[in-house]
Amino acid sequence: MAQQRDPLDRFYSVIPAGGIGSRLWPLSRADAPKFLHDLTGSGSTLLRATWDRLTPLSGAHRIMVVTGRAHRAAVEEQLPELEDHNVVLESEPKESSAAIGLAAAILRRREPEVIIGSFAADHVITDVRGFRRAVGEAVAAADAGYIATIGITPTEPAIGFGYIRCDGTLGIDGAPSATKADTFKEKPELSVAKKYVADGNYLWNAGMFISRADLLLEQLGKSQPDLLAGLEELAEAWDTPRRGAVVDAVWPRLPKIAIDYTVAEPTAAEGRMAVVPGDFDWNDVGDFAAIGKLHARGRASDLAILGEGARVLADASSGVVVSQTGRLISLVGVKDIVVVDTPDALLVTTSANAQRVKSVVDALKLSGRSDIL
Amino acid sequence: MAQQRDPLDRFYSVIPAGGIGSRLWPLSRADAPKFLHDLTGSGSTLLRATWDRLTPLSGAHRIMVVTGRAHRAAVEEQLPELEDHNVVLESEPKESSAAIGLAAAILRRREPEVIIGSFAADHVITDVRGFRRAVGEAVAAADAGYIATIGITPTEPAIGFGYIRCDGTLGIDGAPSATKADTFKEKPELSVAKKYVADGNYLWNAGMFISRADLLLEQLGKSQPDLLAGLEELAEAWDTPRRGAVVDAVWPRLPKIAIDYTVAEPTAAEGRMAVVPGDFDWNDVGDFAAIGKLHARGRASDLAILGEGARVLADASSGVVVSQTGRLISLVGVKDIVVVDTPDALLVTTSANAQRVKSVVDALKLSGRSDIL
Repeated sequence: MAQQRDPLDRFYSVIPAGGIGSRLWPLSRADAPKFLHDLTGSGSTLLRATWDRLTPLSGAHRIMVVTGRAHRAAVEEQLPELEDHNVVLESEPKESSAAIGLAAAILRRREPEVIIGSFAADHVITDVRGFRRAVGEAVAAADAGYIATIGITPTEPAIGFGYIRCDGTLGIDGAPSATKADTFKEKPELSVAKKYVADGNYLWNAGMFISRADLLLEQLGKSQPDLLAGLEELAEAWDTPRRGAVVDAVWPRLPKIAIDYTVAEPTAAEGRMAVVPGDFDWNDVGDFAAIGKLHARGRASDLAILGEGARVLADASSGVVVSQTGRLISLVGVKDIVVVDTPDALLVTTSANAQRVKSVVDALKLSGRSDIL
Repeated sequence: MAQQRDPLDRFYSVIPAGGIGSRLWPLSRADAPKFLHDLTGSGSTLLRATWDRLTPLSGAHRIMVVTGRAHRAAVEEQLPELEDHNVVLESEPKESSAAIGLAAAILRRREPEVIIGSFAADHVITDVRGFRRAVGEAVAAADAGYIATIGITPTEPAIGFGYIRCDGTLGIDGAPSATKADTFKEKPELSVAKKYVADGNYLWNAGMFISRADLLLEQLGKSQPDLLAGLEELAEAWDTPRRGAVVDAVWPRLPKIAIDYTVAEPTAAEGRMAVVPGDFDWNDVGDFAAIGKLHARGRASDLAILGEGARVLADASSGVVVSQTGRLISLVGVKDIVVVDTPDALLVTTSANAQRVKSVVDALKLSGRSDIL
């Protein structure tokens, strides 16, 4: 299956820019999802930073973005280099199997031997060199006939991530550190997470998948033949005038399911999943505690302040403040606090409770307050 | 000194409506001081509740309010029954010796044998019968030639109040529970406060003083002869067309000093201070923790919510929320939290840190941000 030319020449980046990031409410909203925010204080949105991380790998001409219709304008504003043929708009959210599968199906028709790599639009990686090294190995593994993923070396027994158990080295040319992915593990309990970290053979599942598009679709079709058929129907019409009509007919009935279940787990069970250890920093910025960690960089007592023109007066306080209103925010003696000040909603919680923010969003949904979501 | 007719007939209430309540910032402001807020959720401002508590004692015609010029309109809106001759306006704040002393000097000229009682505009008492009983005894003690105060029976070793040490019973007609006030103690350390409460002879100094106006002025003059001279000059001109000119000339140069130092302490030292135990609930609502206590009424886990149209979504949270913006306020897993949400400033602290809120106000003053105070 190996090609003569550099497999990176056949590489295409796919950025699914979907999830709202409910645990970052009220900062992240339906109309201002997580990937459109600068959560690191770098001056770039997460989407833009993702783009900038991928252009050296695939070139700006070979990055496809899959996003909701509602976010088209914002995405194009963030990514002026994004080419029209690389924009895939979802009429409604359908989870990662449909989003990445559609990109794979479209790109495969355009370029049968394409290798795609999908990377979330809302994760943070600062060690760009380490990231590129790992992607390079993953592309080599994909070229060798594997579906590859990049597993992050755990730095703590996190319970917010899934884990990948690694088996023996695969000995792939150009991918010396790639090992076989044995099993994918759901988010564990703390005691289990501690065992994983102590064991040394478990990596965090960062949701990065690198594969020949045809292999990915083949694997997807094994577990979800109807989904694959729908995606192929869409892809066939995509670069034709029929696109709109077919999208309206097909997309709404596609199942919502994560690619971990439809592709990654079954492929691992077949022994065709490779994992490249990602020995770089990675943060999925899943909640406000993660934002605090990003900013604190180890200094636990610090206060992270996000928001242009934020005015914060803090006395013996630490945690995270997000300011969108320009109001004066005063903190007195509050430790590990999370304050998110937006024009129509205020959140006050603590780092330890950051994962529970989703419960507020759920309560608002139930009470019909979608205007504020 | 005893009079034939009921001494309560000679009673005049004085309400100094002054202090901003810095520890209640950003709710209390220079232009919206504590006494103009409904902090109990009763539907009445603290000033109005004070008025309603005093009318059965002195009648609405005999309540004088000393307040700042800037608050005249708000005070008159709260107290439409307040008569013009009972309004004393300060051109600038001068503390309690000047405020109460001026009321005493004006009233004494109008009515030489008047007994005045001064009661802060921003304290909360719900046991109105208990309050009236205590004031009745204090007026009897004043009639008998004492300066009387009402000391509150402590319910805990509070460190936010001054204490009064009581000595033997005085045996005054109509004031059976009045004892001699031995010494006034400043706000103590916790260990000292515990000793006071265990001792049983210490009452909280609630700043209520009841006295013949002439005696109060006489005592004031002993320690502050210049202040007394200024007050008499003001009082002489008060009910004449010269009032404005004399106020402009005299008021600015009066010293700022609390009446505790100029009258209460020296009078106690002379053995002429009586204290009537106030066996009723009393709360000076000195900080947000006090507001929480008022609302919780013993249920420590509760969340007190102040503000018309407040929209609060709380999950496993307790404390105090003050809402002035109509924004949705979400609390997740924050205990004993204090959140004060106003249009231009947000405060987040805890009940335990409530006394430290003043430090924010001080910092804002230092940085010239008086617009927000």
